[in-house]
Amino acid sequence: MKKEDNSFVLRGAVVYSGSETELMAYEDAFVVCVNGVSEGVFTELPEVYKALPLTDAGGMLIMPGMTDLHIHAPQYALRGSYMDLELLPWLNSYVFPEEASYADLGYAKKAYEIFATEMRSGATARACVFATAHQEATLLLMEMLEESGLMTFVGKVNMDRNVPDYYAESTEQSLLATREWLEAVQNKGFKKTRPILTPRFTPSCSRELMQGLGKLAAEYDLPVQSHLSENLSEIDFVKELEPDVSCYADSYLRAGLMGKDRPCVMAHCVWSDETEAEMLKDNGAFIAHSPESNINLCSGVAPVKRYLAEGMHVGLATDVSAGTSASMFAAIRNAIYASKLRFRLYDENTAPLSFPEAFYIATKGGGAFFGKAGSFEKGYLFDALILDDASIPTARTGLSVSERAERFIYLGSEQLIRAKYVSGERVF
Amino acid sequence: MKKEDNSFVLRGAVVYSGSETELMAYEDAFVVCVNGVSEGVFTELPEVYKALPLTDAGGMLIMPGMTDLHIHAPQYALRGSYMDLELLPWLNSYVFPEEASYADLGYAKKAYEIFATEMRSGATARACVFATAHQEATLLLMEMLEESGLMTFVGKVNMDRNVPDYYAESTEQSLLATREWLEAVQNKGFKKTRPILTPRFTPSCSRELMQGLGKLAAEYDLPVQSHLSENLSEIDFVKELEPDVSCYADSYLRAGLMGKDRPCVMAHCVWSDETEAEMLKDNGAFIAHSPESNINLCSGVAPVKRYLAEGMHVGLATDVSAGTSASMFAAIRNAIYASKLRFRLYDENTAPLSFPEAFYIATKGGGAFFGKAGSFEKGYLFDALILDDASIPTARTGLSVSERAERFIYLGSEQLIRAKYVSGERVF
Repeated sequence: MKKEDNSFVLRGAVVYSGSETELMAYEDAFVVCVNGVSEGVFTELPEVYKALPLTDAGGMLIMPGMTDLHIHAPQYALRGSYMDLELLPWLNSYVFPEEASYADLGYAKKAYEIFATEMRSGATARACVFATAHQEATLLLMEMLEESGLMTFVGKVNMDRNVPDYYAESTEQSLLATREWLEAVQNKGFKKTRPILTPRFTPSCSRELMQGLGKLAAEYDLPVQSHLSENLSEIDFVKELEPDVSCYADSYLRAGLMGKDRPCVMAHCVWSDETEAEMLKDNGAFIAHSPESNINLCSGVAPVKRYLAEGMHVGLATDVSAGTSASMFAAIRNAIYASKLRFRLYDENTAPLSFPEAFYIATKGGGAFFGKAGSFEKGYLFDALILDDASIPTARTGLSVSERAERFIYLGSEQLIRAKYVSGERVF
Repeated sequence: MKKEDNSFVLRGAVVYSGSETELMAYEDAFVVCVNGVSEGVFTELPEVYKALPLTDAGGMLIMPGMTDLHIHAPQYALRGSYMDLELLPWLNSYVFPEEASYADLGYAKKAYEIFATEMRSGATARACVFATAHQEATLLLMEMLEESGLMTFVGKVNMDRNVPDYYAESTEQSLLATREWLEAVQNKGFKKTRPILTPRFTPSCSRELMQGLGKLAAEYDLPVQSHLSENLSEIDFVKELEPDVSCYADSYLRAGLMGKDRPCVMAHCVWSDETEAEMLKDNGAFIAHSPESNINLCSGVAPVKRYLAEGMHVGLATDVSAGTSASMFAAIRNAIYASKLRFRLYDENTAPLSFPEAFYIATKGGGAFFGKAGSFEKGYLFDALILDDASIPTARTGLSVSERAERFIYLGSEQLIRAKYVSGERVF
């Protein structure tokens, strides 16, 4: 076997999602990475891998790197502020002014450096990232993320209506700038950073803009990310703006921004009705479940358990800065919290998310948007975290690996990540 | 003015609760402590205090120390485990076996040392603490807390029914052991650690035990802590066990464990009806709002905003280990989260908690159980935290002190506490 830099073996207490509901846990096992791809997990190391360099994590937890399916890089500086508002006033009062400041490349550099540094040091291996409407600042962000070690989709945001003048684009400008941005990205030759079309959401994108973006999606064969059915006032607004769609999702579908051959991520889907859920399912759309965001903006809670039961694609997202934390560990906790209150206070027919289910959406669920990612099963892109859970003191002994994983997610933090690998490359 | 060790001045960006809804914030101010008590906040230092030693926090945030109104010390080792259960099965499967292990003083020492060390390093200045049924281990915990710098009430737990044999006491044993424990505490001469009577909750305390404890409360003039109306199955169980009470709270009231002259803390009060809320109000009972616990065990969410509007005493609590985190910063966040989902999903007539309101219950609200604590107003016991919020990077500049405080609570952690004072004594 050819020995390469990204071919190696890790040894430790291994945990990953076998399925939506099942956590696979090994007290002492070997995870094998060959050319950036997992060969699987072995309790005894097969002879054929014994020549590979081995890192013994000394019994520490080894789990897959996580996927943040929805995060706004230019809102990172706003985290933890003005959390007493709902979606539309919050956007108008704080988010649009902040994003507009990325016209200044000096500010963009300062702010995106902080973002990229923190993403690098977190549990996130892969992410779908919103930038701003500015093509230069978006390119700058992509350059920084290319250096961060993460695998990302990054989108220049499009919007031509219901946005303050200081930040709005005309339909034509928006499409032209997007094409220029796509051409510039092609010239950059990024290896880890890919473009994704990013109509902000229907309230801020005219039908013409959506159709133009749909054509670009086809021409450049691009995935799409946007927002969907987050807040009840937003949904009413969409009905008013687009009275002829069958549901909010249809405003994307009819423009070619969602479809069986058009990978897309829709953030939130808190209030999707049956028509919409079916449309998402039929078109293989990914739901970026953003629990902390949906709590902070009083949006509600998506019925994740039901979406999973229906075989839909669900991933987890931090949605900074409607979510205050870019921590995927916190996002897992928040997904469980939100599902429990949804169950107790709103709909006792939809059970809360169990720990294995929340862990699944954070890893394998969202990872699927990037191909095979978020698991250690054979053939998966090798993303891994080594976690020092023993640094969280307890008097108890003899915890199982599953118990240790649950405990780490509740009590751990990014400071306890001792190593991070993305596609077999060691990030730190 | 006599200069003492616990007379000094702090300078920095000062924030505290003026009232339930109002945050007082000073960009650059002096907080004066004389003999452990606040003299107030001054934008210019009065001449009379200029001889006191001054610590300049270099613009860091200075906020009051916090009160954790309800935490179970012997459950600290269980944090972050088995969070997929509701109250009664969780108690029987995990909590009772864990607590029973404190019969072993060696285990108790190991576990309580971790607890006391982490309480010392956190934002909590004052706490109401449940121990176990064991008098020796409870004394040991009190000795450790006496050394921790915190001001605490600590209770030996009482329970004589519906508890597994390996952990139950007889009524007589329970009362005798409590008296012995109280006598032993008196002989210890603690300065910071006071006893509090602690019937676990009505399901595990017979009427005879409650009445015996009520007599002890009167004889030793003791406060009381217990649980109330946390979970719907628990409430049904109480109705079955005590069919002649007017509400769950009445089971404490009729035994003299609550009353106008009997300070008491009741954890949860998630499902208190009008009768019960009125009884709590009339008797000046403190509600220990435990949002993370109430989420984790799918209990529900207490209508804190309504309780505050009705002029009831509400403090905040972590309720480890039904709450996974002993962090009061996390508890403030969780109080806001829970209130927002309660508002959106259950009762749109009760508004969510604002940041100032959640901050209030964490400081001045719960602090009132200890007298005047949790504020920098003149005459308050001087509990303070110095917080290094500048270590949380952001590209934004010119944030107000209120904005910095909100941001710190959402993004900060115990590691960023640079100094902690309790009653004017520097803890670290």
